[in-house]
Amino acid sequence: MGKRVAVVLAGCGVFDGSEIHETSAVLVHLSRNGAEVKMFAPNIDQMHVVDHVKGSPTEETRNVLVESARLARGEIQDLTQLKVSDLDAVIFPGGFGVAKNLCSWAVEGKNCSVNDQVKSTLLAFHGAKKPIGLCCISPVLAAKIFPGCELTVGHDTNDDGRFPDSETAGAIQELGCKHVCKKVNETHVDEKNKIVTTCAFMCKAPLHEIFDGVGEMVQDVLKLA
Amino acid sequence: MGKRVAVVLAGCGVFDGSEIHETSAVLVHLSRNGAEVKMFAPNIDQMHVVDHVKGSPTEETRNVLVESARLARGEIQDLTQLKVSDLDAVIFPGGFGVAKNLCSWAVEGKNCSVNDQVKSTLLAFHGAKKPIGLCCISPVLAAKIFPGCELTVGHDTNDDGRFPDSETAGAIQELGCKHVCKKVNETHVDEKNKIVTTCAFMCKAPLHEIFDGVGEMVQDVLKLA
Repeated sequence: MGKRVAVVLAGCGVFDGSEIHETSAVLVHLSRNGAEVKMFAPNIDQMHVVDHVKGSPTEETRNVLVESARLARGEIQDLTQLKVSDLDAVIFPGGFGVAKNLCSWAVEGKNCSVNDQVKSTLLAFHGAKKPIGLCCISPVLAAKIFPGCELTVGHDTNDDGRFPDSETAGAIQELGCKHVCKKVNETHVDEKNKIVTTCAFMCKAPLHEIFDGVGEMVQDVLKLA
Repeated sequence: MGKRVAVVLAGCGVFDGSEIHETSAVLVHLSRNGAEVKMFAPNIDQMHVVDHVKGSPTEETRNVLVESARLARGEIQDLTQLKVSDLDAVIFPGGFGVAKNLCSWAVEGKNCSVNDQVKSTLLAFHGAKKPIGLCCISPVLAAKIFPGCELTVGHDTNDDGRFPDSETAGAIQELGCKHVCKKVNETHVDEKNKIVTTCAFMCKAPLHEIFDGVGEMVQDVLKLA
């Protein structure tokens, strides 16, 4: 029987929700590895609705669960319905929605708070010694909840111009975690905490390299599950 | 230099826009094959905004270009800006948005009309002998515009339960086209018209098989470009 993996979403779109291509990559790789996927999102309003042509917020209101359902083709549940005992692992794709809707990192950085359901979900998987996969900006969730854990969001400097958000690595260190520099096709596995991270769109890389990096993360999560 | 490929979108979400995972698969495979991608969508209102949890339309209004920009991470242009002379091929991912926003197939079936810009775009690529890639329900656009062309939308019967929309094949035949039955991992190439089709989500298949089928379509398009 395939591993049972929860995928937790934050909306649908890089600027106000889950990053679409990271999410699709997670699902393709889980499918190829025979995993049984259940998708979840919190039933809350988005912090923003961003016009992705203009790159600026609109006056609209949208719900995180309803928009996440676009990525899930309708097959999604309220995050309150997630039962860790029915699952072997959890994966959070990235996108600004993680930093806006699942926690307040987009506004408060390392002083952010994490959504209660998201926090209790991560604590429950961690407590049950079940692996957690995070990509792009999602590792900040673990940085807030599991001080001392090891994470990557790519590089901690932007020397080559490929890591414009490299200051995130410093913020993770300030939270008492260890940041490990990795390329887009690499993961970091924190064996003790069973946390697998990869930088995905934190790196300006061709889409297929991001797809492959997410695939490494998925495989490492399944190995630990 | 890589081939220059236009990807034309219809919104963002299987029930009212472009199918997200088909679109992402097209972009991953184009990236892996070194293509230079430009994305376009018509600047028109969507026919519907569908709540993807409930599966029913809401009272909202959304714009096809603005929602498509979610898939394009903001890098998208109004379809009126597409210049065939700057491009080597065009690909239309599927999703109900194709049948709702790019033509009226969802309401009128084979008696549908095709959006003027979409029609002129397809006629221009065809006239320039540049290849056209279509997946899922998108082949109906070609069926309306190029009578006599050869297409696949998967199987023409639902004997194995994997092709619930198999009547689409019959409608394509009634329009004077030839429907060719193909599996999810196969394409049909109409060499004369330079039209490449694959069934994608018209088949109930695991996501990675759909991803791979779309990859075959992308490669066949690039071969003809």
